[in-house]
Amino acid sequence: PNDTIEYENYFSRTLLDRRSDKRRDSKWLNTKQNHPATVYILFSNLNPLVTLSGGEDGSQQPEVRLCRLCHKDVKEYMSQTEKVTLIFLGVELQLSTLNGGILKEEDDDGLVAWFALSIDSTFAEQFKQKHEDCYFLHPPMPALLQLPEKEAGVVAQARSVLAWHNRYQFCPTCGSATKIEEGGYKTTCLKEDCPSLQGVHNTSYPRVDPVVIMQVLHPDGNQCLLGRQKRFPPGMFTCLAGFVEPGETIEDAVRREVEEESGVKIGHVQYVSCQPWPMPSSLMIGCLAVAVSTEIRVDKNEIEDARWFTREQVVDVLIKGNQRSFFVPPSRAIAHQLIKHWIGMNANL
Amino acid sequence: PNDTIEYENYFSRTLLDRRSDKRRDSKWLNTKQNHPATVYILFSNLNPLVTLSGGEDGSQQPEVRLCRLCHKDVKEYMSQTEKVTLIFLGVELQLSTLNGGILKEEDDDGLVAWFALSIDSTFAEQFKQKHEDCYFLHPPMPALLQLPEKEAGVVAQARSVLAWHNRYQFCPTCGSATKIEEGGYKTTCLKEDCPSLQGVHNTSYPRVDPVVIMQVLHPDGNQCLLGRQKRFPPGMFTCLAGFVEPGETIEDAVRREVEEESGVKIGHVQYVSCQPWPMPSSLMIGCLAVAVSTEIRVDKNEIEDARWFTREQVVDVLIKGNQRSFFVPPSRAIAHQLIKHWIGMNANL
Ligand SMILES: Nc1ncnc2c1ncn2[C@@H]1O[C@H](COP(=O)(O)O)[C@@H](O)[C@H]1O
Ligand SMILES: Nc1ncnc2c1ncn2[C@@H]1O[C@H](COP(=O)(O)O)[C@@H](O)[C@H]1O
Repeated sequence: PNDTIEYENYFSRTLLDRRSDKRRDSKWLNTKQNHPATVYILFSNLNPLVTLSGGEDGSQQPEVRLCRLCHKDVKEYMSQTEKVTLIFLGVELQLSTLNGGILKEEDDDGLVAWFALSIDSTFAEQFKQKHEDCYFLHPPMPALLQLPEKEAGVVAQARSVLAWHNRYQFCPTCGSATKIEEGGYKTTCLKEDCPSLQGVHNTSYPRVDPVVIMQVLHPDGNQCLLGRQKRFPPGMFTCLAGFVEPGETIEDAVRREVEEESGVKIGHVQYVSCQPWPMPSSLMIGCLAVAVSTEIRVDKNEIEDARWFTREQVVDVLIKGNQRSFFVPPSRAIAHQLIKHWIGMNANL
Repeated sequence: PNDTIEYENYFSRTLLDRRSDKRRDSKWLNTKQNHPATVYILFSNLNPLVTLSGGEDGSQQPEVRLCRLCHKDVKEYMSQTEKVTLIFLGVELQLSTLNGGILKEEDDDGLVAWFALSIDSTFAEQFKQKHEDCYFLHPPMPALLQLPEKEAGVVAQARSVLAWHNRYQFCPTCGSATKIEEGGYKTTCLKEDCPSLQGVHNTSYPRVDPVVIMQVLHPDGNQCLLGRQKRFPPGMFTCLAGFVEPGETIEDAVRREVEEESGVKIGHVQYVSCQPWPMPSSLMIGCLAVAVSTEIRVDKNEIEDARWFTREQVVDVLIKGNQRSFFVPPSRAIAHQLIKHWIGMNANL
């Protein structure tokens, strides 16, 4: 089975091993929280703390980077559990053999743990005053797409879990307060007889919303359907997309969404690749969809415009960089990858 | 792109067009609720009301079928909005031209609408006393797998949305009560200044939990990895599976889950097909995963056993029906389809 391509995937896990087995090991988590080698990344209002640093390989172009803090930088906030949220992200995949000059104690496993710490806006102000070279990346999009690939995956994980805590602080089953457990991956209702405590329920676990995003091919194989929403920058067109509904397959969701938004009917659907999208916590499932009708009737509630674009028009924009007529999302967005995948396919299907 | 197979998919939409555009049209919904052609399916405690009927094509084997009720059967409960939940499911895909003898009024669009109605246990008792040939299917699994394919999809949709209302009655952002809107697909917080009312948030929409389920191939291509949980019936083995986490791709989730549960490392991952699973509201994403290591170390917290099975062993069980040594889930489960897909593939990869 070697006919699917796995794209280099922005927002995908590359830097850390999640080590979910450690989430219930509060002794280990505690030790790591206080360990000098541990890395903290800071969030305020779901925006990560970043800094500008000189480009790699000696180039002068400054790059946006995550600020990698250590325990002493954040210690003062950690005890204020009312105002901060702590998430265990995992351990670094590649162990540094030198260990950065830090003496390894006897019971030290040598694993470099990463945590995300979200602080309230008062703390955020305090922090910025002490660290003038750092700032909280805002607005998140498209700014998040500027991070180095390996850091983007860590931010996607952290931001999604923090966004969940941000909007899901109360038990949806009974309305009571909850407490955070298992390194940030579980919330438990504090009301003793709440039905959410009997058995395992998804109310306790972070939400991931599956979304289909599809490159729709004209039956002639030489055109594709791209649309735009009112809130997009002028001239931007992209793949159609929508949330998967309960009781629906990926393929049926593709057919329903395309028909709802554009009136175009879809036959065959093929999965291509996916991408986590931390706005706030989606899983974008990228597909190719072959149209079996061509007439476009735009649902103005959902999108502003949808059109067939020829392969030549798309090549012009995507490969030749000629963006006079329209443009598509940047290369790190899955829509871009889907459109490019189509361009790379045989012209005759 | 014709190299993915779309399996006939149990629990997938086949009978109804969801017509999400009608969810906000309360006048239309109201008319349909009272229309004599409208179909109601009834739930109590998330279990659908079914009946046994003679098999199709004259055979005598009785079949489990959804009870298709009409407005007059459920009218008495509909006004008790505290004790019932109503979900608009969609309209029948194939319009009967005869319209079942019902006179079509002037403003009637001829669409046959379906609703799911969930009633409390007191009403359920009352109902059963009046309709002795009907019962609420319980426990849901494996009983739900007995429904005719076309009805299973409707039940998957209805049960997932009802399960969401069942566990998400309070606003997770502020703990207040909520109201149900848009034909059952939206809940809105009743507290005026709740942050969930500013902007669009997933707290208002039904939850769908993406799960990866994978047929793991031995590097030699001639064995596959199947495991079992303690709660399975003795002798049953199936594909490994697990929830996709925030910030994770499908492919990474496959790799993480297989390694966590069995210690086996995965290289290439390929999407095969998916299936909605209304327990309570999962989307099972089926993949083939090629192992790059073979040693098994079972995580006893997650599974009880995992083993490599040869192609011959699996053919014996799946095709020849020889279930002495072990057995796999029934054909309507995606695990069965994945295993069968592998059996059908070339022996040499
Ligand atoms: N959305 C979710 N719903 C239920 N369990 C979850 C969810 N996300 C993660 N889990 C974890 O998965 C376990 C259940 O997995 P399983 O036995 O495969 O149903 C639970 O004990 C949780 O630790
Ligand atoms: N989980 C969800 N989160 C946000 N919006 C949702 C969700 N499920 C369905 N929707 C609908 O999708 C619309 C937003 O879609 P979009 O403009 O593609 O982000 C919302 O207005 C809702 O009607």
